[in-house]
Amino acid sequence: MKIICKQEKLIKALNIVSRAVSQTSTLGITRGILIKTEGDIQVSFSTTDIQISITTKIESIVNEYGGVVVSARLFTDLIRKLPAGDILIVTDEKNLVTIKTEKSEYELQGKEEGEFPRIDTDEEGKKLKIDKEELRSLIDGTVFAASTDESRGVITGVLFELKEGALSFVALDGYRVAIKRERGEAYKGEEIKAVVPAKLMREVSKILADTAGNEEEALLDIDDRRLKLFTEDTQVRVNLLEGEYIKYKDVLPKENKISTVLSRGELLDAVERAAMLKSEGKNAFVRFSVGDGAVTVSSRADEGRGRETVSAEKNGEDIEIGFDARFLTDALKVISDDIIEMQYNTSVSPCLIKPAEGDSFEYLILPVRLSTVSV
Amino acid sequence: MKIICKQEKLIKALNIVSRAVSQTSTLGITRGILIKTEGDIQVSFSTTDIQISITTKIESIVNEYGGVVVSARLFTDLIRKLPAGDILIVTDEKNLVTIKTEKSEYELQGKEEGEFPRIDTDEEGKKLKIDKEELRSLIDGTVFAASTDESRGVITGVLFELKEGALSFVALDGYRVAIKRERGEAYKGEEIKAVVPAKLMREVSKILADTAGNEEEALLDIDDRRLKLFTEDTQVRVNLLEGEYIKYKDVLPKENKISTVLSRGELLDAVERAAMLKSEGKNAFVRFSVGDGAVTVSSRADEGRGRETVSAEKNGEDIEIGFDARFLTDALKVISDDIIEMQYNTSVSPCLIKPAEGDSFEYLILPVRLSTVSV
Repeated sequence: MKIICKQEKLIKALNIVSRAVSQTSTLGITRGILIKTEGDIQVSFSTTDIQISITTKIESIVNEYGGVVVSARLFTDLIRKLPAGDILIVTDEKNLVTIKTEKSEYELQGKEEGEFPRIDTDEEGKKLKIDKEELRSLIDGTVFAASTDESRGVITGVLFELKEGALSFVALDGYRVAIKRERGEAYKGEEIKAVVPAKLMREVSKILADTAGNEEEALLDIDDRRLKLFTEDTQVRVNLLEGEYIKYKDVLPKENKISTVLSRGELLDAVERAAMLKSEGKNAFVRFSVGDGAVTVSSRADEGRGRETVSAEKNGEDIEIGFDARFLTDALKVISDDIIEMQYNTSVSPCLIKPAEGDSFEYLILPVRLSTVSV
Repeated sequence: MKIICKQEKLIKALNIVSRAVSQTSTLGITRGILIKTEGDIQVSFSTTDIQISITTKIESIVNEYGGVVVSARLFTDLIRKLPAGDILIVTDEKNLVTIKTEKSEYELQGKEEGEFPRIDTDEEGKKLKIDKEELRSLIDGTVFAASTDESRGVITGVLFELKEGALSFVALDGYRVAIKRERGEAYKGEEIKAVVPAKLMREVSKILADTAGNEEEALLDIDDRRLKLFTEDTQVRVNLLEGEYIKYKDVLPKENKISTVLSRGELLDAVERAAMLKSEGKNAFVRFSVGDGAVTVSSRADEGRGRETVSAEKNGEDIEIGFDARFLTDALKVISDDIIEMQYNTSVSPCLIKPAEGDSFEYLILPVRLSTVSV
């Protein structure tokens, strides 16, 4: 292989593919990056940690076809430190990779390209064209609510559900459920259901940000085992989780006796401040006192106590209810609407948070006992 | 105490004094902040971890005189999260501190102001007016070279030496010596010699950056035990290290057989890149091959090897010499001149790095054996 690439383009490609480089794997090859000529004017870079695989292409002068696997960390760090401009990359028959600029010459011992796992990127499943920004908002609006306990199986994933003209993303962890949905013509196709590991979903969101470019849409291709994303010059493949997802619709409350309409920003600020008063080593709890015209958010710790007043329009009775502050702030941070609605039934039943208008986001949160909050 | 302060001004003061808040001390009061009225229109904030003490003042409406000690972490975090504008701070006879804005009310349990260690800021030593930027450059140009091994006593400090019209800062750790000096009318006063703990010097440099304002000069006051800094509305007091400092002038080479003049930036880039090829868990070593017209910087690791060429004007013989890369980059980063000179004698004797012009900075570095470098 003998290629000449611009350092600036190499950096961009390496930033994208480094998201699939395993930091911890003992499988050496998953810490490597496959560099491969693609015809006469392109080079591809691929990485995989088996669960997620990424390939991206850049323009290049290709003088000799070929491919090689090199240490992803070392190659990436080195390219980042080289000055902007042309970089010559040459391999010999022993897979020694020479990286050369005017003043610098590095030799890295590479490996046979055949040792790199085959990344199958054929399109073979159900397909969906999707606006990249919409896809990011679906991911970011739910992924934080998935369980981080690896032993919990399917709920460490995000449910992807295309049905009846809506694409819904759902994540839950036993204490809360986050549902984000988009409707529109684009979502009127064949039903699709898949569960994607939350940590891989986070990487997909970041790759969407990294590859923001000319194309507004990405193509998704989903079969029983994998989700593939095609955007610009990048292809991502992630393994799906197996198993039936929780019937989340069953846990959504059928009615609500009390509702408040209030400012998302004001409530977020109030909860974040109140959350500072917490017992050491414990979660931060806040108490909501929902009254006429205002919600009072209070907290207490050994060091003192706090009280915040947030104006609110109320329907129904007064209510006192306690929450883990982080479960509130997680949701309040991802809602894009300024005005939200909170719906309650009793102090011990789940509370629903949603934008005041529409159902693009629904978030169900279990309260904590008021005795736990001890305010 | 009853005061009203602007949140914006409080933040600025808290950022400064938080530099002396002990994170680890078991002495509770050193994790506190003393808030105290100073006459009718000012409030002071003080912190101390015994080794370093900081006091800064801001404008305030003072309705009732008084003082109190509160948790520095909690008070600072809370003020940071409150919206810009007026904040009312009131204490009662039980040292309960109420912090109040339009929508928020917090009560923190404070302590008697008398429990806070007395910070003596009388001017009683030798005095020196100094340009704040010059002081920062003296600190930043040397502090990195001080020993970080707490058992090493006086060399964990930076020598402050005012003598013969020059102010010199010196730091060393047994492998290198950094000397930074400024000359000028301002430095023609009485001789001063003091050793300031390097970690406190770092804080002083940051405080100088934090307090950048109208005054270009700061006042230093140094006695046998303490260095005090007065700038804008801020006073800093640091304890000195005891003991006689190393006679650093004895270790400076009397002659040099070989010298090279080269670009600081090019050499820094070359060494930083070459340093990426290092054995895992070890320091990065580089080999200099000093020849006619160029210095070749090379490195080797299990994964490969690198070679960088840096143009240089040479006087004297060729030489091969090895260095710990970090000891080079530390110095190359703080030199402000574009062109530097490196002076050598043999492969096993110290190398001197300085700007090509003048002696405002001198840096002596011990080489490593070429067999260690194994390039």
